[in-house]
Amino acid sequence: MTETQQHNGIIYGVGLGPGAADLMSVRSDRLIRGAAHIAYFRKKGNPGQARQIVEGLLRADVVEWPMDYPVTTEIPLSDPRYNQLLAAFYQDWADRLSELASQQGEVIVLCEGDPFFYGSFMHLYERLRDRHKVDVVPGITGMSAAWTASGQPISWGDDKIAIVMGTSDEDELTASIEQADAIVVMKIGRHLGKIRRILTQAGHAERAVIVCYAASEKEEVIPLSDYPSDRLPYFSIILVHGRGRRP
Amino acid sequence: MTETQQHNGIIYGVGLGPGAADLMSVRSDRLIRGAAHIAYFRKKGNPGQARQIVEGLLRADVVEWPMDYPVTTEIPLSDPRYNQLLAAFYQDWADRLSELASQQGEVIVLCEGDPFFYGSFMHLYERLRDRHKVDVVPGITGMSAAWTASGQPISWGDDKIAIVMGTSDEDELTASIEQADAIVVMKIGRHLGKIRRILTQAGHAERAVIVCYAASEKEEVIPLSDYPSDRLPYFSIILVHGRGRRP
Repeated sequence: MTETQQHNGIIYGVGLGPGAADLMSVRSDRLIRGAAHIAYFRKKGNPGQARQIVEGLLRADVVEWPMDYPVTTEIPLSDPRYNQLLAAFYQDWADRLSELASQQGEVIVLCEGDPFFYGSFMHLYERLRDRHKVDVVPGITGMSAAWTASGQPISWGDDKIAIVMGTSDEDELTASIEQADAIVVMKIGRHLGKIRRILTQAGHAERAVIVCYAASEKEEVIPLSDYPSDRLPYFSIILVHGRGRRP
Repeated sequence: MTETQQHNGIIYGVGLGPGAADLMSVRSDRLIRGAAHIAYFRKKGNPGQARQIVEGLLRADVVEWPMDYPVTTEIPLSDPRYNQLLAAFYQDWADRLSELASQQGEVIVLCEGDPFFYGSFMHLYERLRDRHKVDVVPGITGMSAAWTASGQPISWGDDKIAIVMGTSDEDELTASIEQADAIVVMKIGRHLGKIRRILTQAGHAERAVIVCYAASEKEEVIPLSDYPSDRLPYFSIILVHGRGRRP
């Protein structure tokens, strides 16, 4: 570190779990209730899912640092401007959080789910880890809430689980799904038609269930075969449960 | 349900998370602190990992129901007696917990990690779900604690994750690992030699890390290439981190 770099204080990446406030860990709950400064990502103009989860837990004098994404779906991922805009955004916030932690001692970054399991906090973390103390508190993932909601264990015995993103290439998805005993598909949205096709070919379509908004009041579990549309809301996961060894 | 079946009361399967008491959810913490009856699995003669996690949280008058496995590693999995003994054991405890919940209103079953992600509670759940109300509280998995301990996100962008058990057949493991961008290997123990061979063939051995006892005082992160033995302690996980898209 050079003399001009700030590096006092701690930046916490705090897992909030899947959505219900009481499904965050005791450690996250305590850090959030005590926080003087919290930061969270949101789509501009939206309250932000992370901020909504902690509603009612915060100190009256907390200072909030909403981090508004410069772009979400307005530019396709393939456009080089997408990466440039996001890289500049993460760099800017890494700098600001580092400065804030140096001045204030602690900043809490709210992270939906588990901070190191997909999710935006990782992009800050990669830009901070070599120059600042960052502490990460894990969280219950959205997929855990989804299989809990489904009322069936996801995996038994030696079951092999594939966790895949609906945004991936069809051939790659097919190869992963064919090897697996249990399957979790995330980031589905408008890729549902492709996922349905692959699961049908692999003989799993009849067992697959869609879980929307797990661990929230809007939670819903629907067999894939009963879902007519080719598009899913963002907070949706498709599960195929394992059928492995059991006594 | 027939008239002779008991079906009042609730049986809770409560996720404890990876090991540190403050990494369980606020909901689990509240249920456990309030519990009049708790049940937990353990190896006979051992205190049991689940019971140790809740040490200091329990009511003074709590009634404890340790469920001692009739067999752990004394008989090989392949021996039919193994399954017979365990099936009888789970059936017996399903009956006893059902009766207890009917009489007492509530029984809390402590579950390490996340109840529906591998783990013994599922075997009770399958025997109870059609005759008794069972509520499951998810938990932070041991693998989340492992990748948090490793100091690196497990997955980025569209990374495909394979979760596999070291106990599986070598060809099946190879096929799953070859399809994956990020890998989690559990249940390793004496299968480390096989896992090392597969990861080496797949070109991942240099990046793989072993995480032992994540989220506990004994937590340790060791590059696979620095670990000399062919055996690992039970609470160990091998991780290969994804390297997917990032701005």
